Amino acid sequence: MNDNLFDSSDSNRHAHDLRHLQTARFDEPFDLERGGRLPSVTIAYETYGRLSPQRDNAVLICHALSGDSHVARHDEDDDPGWWDIMVGPGKPIDTDRFFVVCPNILGGCRGTTGPNCTNPATGRPFGAEFPAITVGDLVRAQLLLIDHLGIGRLLAVLGGSLGGHMTLDFARRYPDRTAGAVALATSARITSQALAFDVVGRNAILRDPSYHDGQYYDKPEGPRVGLALARMLAHITYLSREAMMRKFGADRLAPRDIQTDFETQFSVGSYLAYQGDRFGQRFDANSYVALTAAIDLFNLGNSPAELAEALRGASCRWLLISFSSDWLFPKFQSRDLVDALIADDKPVSYCNVESSCGHDAFLLPNDLDSYGELVRAFLANLHAPPDDEKQDTDDGPYGSITSPKSIFHHQHRIDYDSIVELIPPAASVLDLGCGTGGLLSRLRRRGHRHTMGLERDEQAIVACVRRGLDVVQADLNEGLDAFTAKQFDFVVLSQTLQTVIDVCRVLDEMLRVGHRAIVSFPNLGYEPYRRELADAGRAPHADDVEGYHWYDTPNVRFLTIADFETFCEEKKIQVHKRIALNTRTQQPVDVDPNRNANLAILVLSR
Amino acid sequence: MNDNLFDSSDSNRHAHDLRHLQTARFDEPFDLERGGRLPSVTIAYETYGRLSPQRDNAVLICHALSGDSHVARHDEDDDPGWWDIMVGPGKPIDTDRFFVVCPNILGGCRGTTGPNCTNPATGRPFGAEFPAITVGDLVRAQLLLIDHLGIGRLLAVLGGSLGGHMTLDFARRYPDRTAGAVALATSARITSQALAFDVVGRNAILRDPSYHDGQYYDKPEGPRVGLALARMLAHITYLSREAMMRKFGADRLAPRDIQTDFETQFSVGSYLAYQGDRFGQRFDANSYVALTAAIDLFNLGNSPAELAEALRGASCRWLLISFSSDWLFPKFQSRDLVDALIADDKPVSYCNVESSCGHDAFLLPNDLDSYGELVRAFLANLHAPPDDEKQDTDDGPYGSITSPKSIFHHQHRIDYDSIVELIPPAASVLDLGCGTGGLLSRLRRRGHRHTMGLERDEQAIVACVRRGLDVVQADLNEGLDAFTAKQFDFVVLSQTLQTVIDVCRVLDEMLRVGHRAIVSFPNLGYEPYRRELADAGRAPHADDVEGYHWYDTPNVRFLTIADFETFCEEKKIQVHKRIALNTRTQQPVDVDPNRNANLAILVLSR
Repeated sequence: MNDNLFDSSDSNRHAHDLRHLQTARFDEPFDLERGGRLPSVTIAYETYGRLSPQRDNAVLICHALSGDSHVARHDEDDDPGWWDIMVGPGKPIDTDRFFVVCPNILGGCRGTTGPNCTNPATGRPFGAEFPAITVGDLVRAQLLLIDHLGIGRLLAVLGGSLGGHMTLDFARRYPDRTAGAVALATSARITSQALAFDVVGRNAILRDPSYHDGQYYDKPEGPRVGLALARMLAHITYLSREAMMRKFGADRLAPRDIQTDFETQFSVGSYLAYQGDRFGQRFDANSYVALTAAIDLFNLGNSPAELAEALRGASCRWLLISFSSDWLFPKFQSRDLVDALIADDKPVSYCNVESSCGHDAFLLPNDLDSYGELVRAFLANLHAPPDDEKQDTDDGPYGSITSPKSIFHHQHRIDYDSIVELIPPAASVLDLGCGTGGLLSRLRRRGHRHTMGLERDEQAIVACVRRGLDVVQADLNEGLDAFTAKQFDFVVLSQTLQTVIDVCRVLDEMLRVGHRAIVSFPNLGYEPYRRELADAGRAPHADDVEGYHWYDTPNVRFLTIADFETFCEEKKIQVHKRIALNTRTQQPVDVDPNRNANLAILVLSR
Repeated sequence: MNDNLFDSSDSNRHAHDLRHLQTARFDEPFDLERGGRLPSVTIAYETYGRLSPQRDNAVLICHALSGDSHVARHDEDDDPGWWDIMVGPGKPIDTDRFFVVCPNILGGCRGTTGPNCTNPATGRPFGAEFPAITVGDLVRAQLLLIDHLGIGRLLAVLGGSLGGHMTLDFARRYPDRTAGAVALATSARITSQALAFDVVGRNAILRDPSYHDGQYYDKPEGPRVGLALARMLAHITYLSREAMMRKFGADRLAPRDIQTDFETQFSVGSYLAYQGDRFGQRFDANSYVALTAAIDLFNLGNSPAELAEALRGASCRWLLISFSSDWLFPKFQSRDLVDALIADDKPVSYCNVESSCGHDAFLLPNDLDSYGELVRAFLANLHAPPDDEKQDTDDGPYGSITSPKSIFHHQHRIDYDSIVELIPPAASVLDLGCGTGGLLSRLRRRGHRHTMGLERDEQAIVACVRRGLDVVQADLNEGLDAFTAKQFDFVVLSQTLQTVIDVCRVLDEMLRVGHRAIVSFPNLGYEPYRRELADAGRAPHADDVEGYHWYDTPNVRFLTIADFETFCEEKKIQVHKRIALNTRTQQPVDVDPNRNANLAILVLSR
């Protein structure tokens, strides 16, 4: 069992740890968004790596609810950090390249001004009198520090969960102050379900008789029971059902032997009791109340329109990552954010990483190969964009890195040649099923600025981000709701039509979103295929990809050029141009293409 | 907002309500499974409808954690019951036909012996000294009442959630005492996640200073805060995320005006506060602790083998229902139960009802058309099996009631004729993709006893249950893990092969589970189809179902008889017999079937 989830550091921090803790004090009054005012603000923080002479390599990491500034070890003697897997020399957030800044957040209890600090007006801790704070206030405090450090523009701001909220807010609030934003496992606002859990947790603290209206600091005991209950509850929401089953399914009635006054009949109960007790020792209940309230109030918009408006000012590049088993910050919330960015033509990449680790996934090594590599690639491209002259290799017919041998036999992709020729220079292009980004890379080399890809496969998305492309994970069958009418000059569906179940919807959407649509597909009418059925009585199986059979091909739609043209006629789709190719001869086909071509490319509009 | 969720009755019950409350007192000591003993047991219960002279129409309803005996109104003047939508004259559990018995459960606080009753040994309420109880104890108490009422064999036992646990346990414990069992939204044991929520709820009660070690009955205040916290938390788990979004998403910061000491900043908070406070007024904290502990300890087995063993004794017919958005008792748990029953050849039907209402779905009218009709049909068939001589109509090629016009043009299904002829009388048959049960009905009329269908479509499943067939919802692409090797004499895949993505897996599984497999599919090699491609250059589109095109056909696999025979050869599948049909002429085809037949039926084994 991983007892360190969200519990990266103990209240009795070691000397090693504190050795690197720096503080910055700001003596100006700090006005808060909900009307309160702090007479001054102190920010405790840690830094890693070196700020470059150009001051262009700073990465701001925003920690989550119960995290702190100790994001990683500073050296081998140091205590573990909460994100050692991500931050350090050679790690995805490479401290050999980047100057990493991680401040403790406002309202917390780790050195930055919060409820456990002395209120100069009364001489005792703020306690529950600490004024109401918002995520915006947390972010405004971060900026104080960034100014203090003399950093004009961050390379990136980055965080998960509440840290993701701060990331979103920083990027939209200070568009000139960061080149990139990476938000993991987060949302424009939390779900009503997540909010409800927070409410129960706060009620457990506030109704604990030992809460003493928040002035428990000089009492023999504070609201440890209430805080522990809140923590136990929250802890459940950080884990996936599957992860809990793995941890506690087999030995349900084998509690660990711990000292606690909480119920320990079940193994999961003893685990929660341990987590709850331990959290009570290291975290301040007033901070918990103040910070969860800030999370619950965070709201970038109730509707797609409001959300798009909230993000309008942002001018950075974006990377958003969700995790498939995260039910506290479910995928659709990241998609809402992505959709709002897409609707406003912002450069964004997104992946819903397949994971069994729940909300905790972004803190755990299990899925690091996906989310860590995405972050690494994104930051690398922000810092030093890829060499545009580098010759990228083309990819298979499905655009997937997992594609087997294709009808192109690793030859030059003459279909890409044709498609690129059909697109005027500088046109904006959306590539549906972009795979590892072969076509988009060609277009970028040709000078196209505004391009984007949609792709289903996680590893293909990682490959695209490595290439510095904007790619969003999507299932084409679900439509293109995020995109506005005529948002792109061209929408391309290259060798993907035949794998789509809902053909009508995908084509309708392409024609809505693009001024022009370009569709390419294998032609079942190709003479050898006809012969295969007519003479041999066999389903044409070499229709597009070698190595597949009728029973295992990814293709689920079979059509001829004539079928498609009839379809266009019936659906009132205009065909502007048709290119027929024979990939065996690598030649265009002019005579009887429905018989002589094995690949068709059409330019369409409605 | 539905404030009545799980809150079907108030503690100050009306006179109408109590008018119908009956009690039975059992003065014998009642030994409990965990070692305790109750000196006597009193059971409070209500009944509806009339017991038939043959005493064969009794239905036992087991209520959930916070329900009670008042399952429905007794008359128009009566207070609402917690399941009025299901129980009453003409309702799915039709009190014009059935004699319904609903007892309050042991350990509860509604008249049946529980912690709030006087302990004769001390003269004060049992309180926390109430001995530990199990679901088995609850069920054994139910049996006392059934005996008392002179009912030898129930028509059915039925319940959801904890009521489902009791249903499962009753049916396996007393195989001779019920003909049917209907378990909704339940499991063989709760998930570790659900158990964890229970633990937090109990800790909130037990650590409330007003709990007074469970002897709070004579105190000015009991653990109302702790009980309210437990209830708030549990209430969240009864709702789906989507339902909460609907209820609270729009007006997040518009709390209702209620009197409470709990936080009311958010609308969901005021709702939870109201639910928590109200529950504290009507429910006993000791009952909550005792009953949730019983739920958490309930465990029919950790492994499929243990579970199958636990259910081995049961001899009734089964209906299990889960709900797609129920994350507290997720679908896979019902499937585990179904799989255990299947592995032991027990008659079972199952449907995962598509619902947005979470665990509460079985108490709400939203999805009544599905789950209510399933229960109605199942009970009706238990009581009066369908007239076997009644001429059922055949169904479409996909076996779905939603199928469009088919190549059979509503003609007699000659393919069914052939399939039935291939199966010896009395053989056991599993029909994959059974649709509305046309083939299975034919087999039943022919005298086959052991038949079962798998089907994906919810409404088709309802239709099968109406016909009295055993049908389990399943996606064939996920395999047939529940079935043992050679479990059926014949496994049939009728006109479904071409809609399956994972052809190899489905065929492998058929050949594993059946002594023989029968596969039928449309033949792409049929001469008119060949001509369509070869001469007209069109994808053969009339290959199976009229009204579809290449872009919208449910078919995703295209094959000829020759292709399939090659496949069998390569995969070392033995072909025992091949029947080729021409459904246009309604004749079998003997000459060059790959050219002259549009439908093939093969008998296979490995």
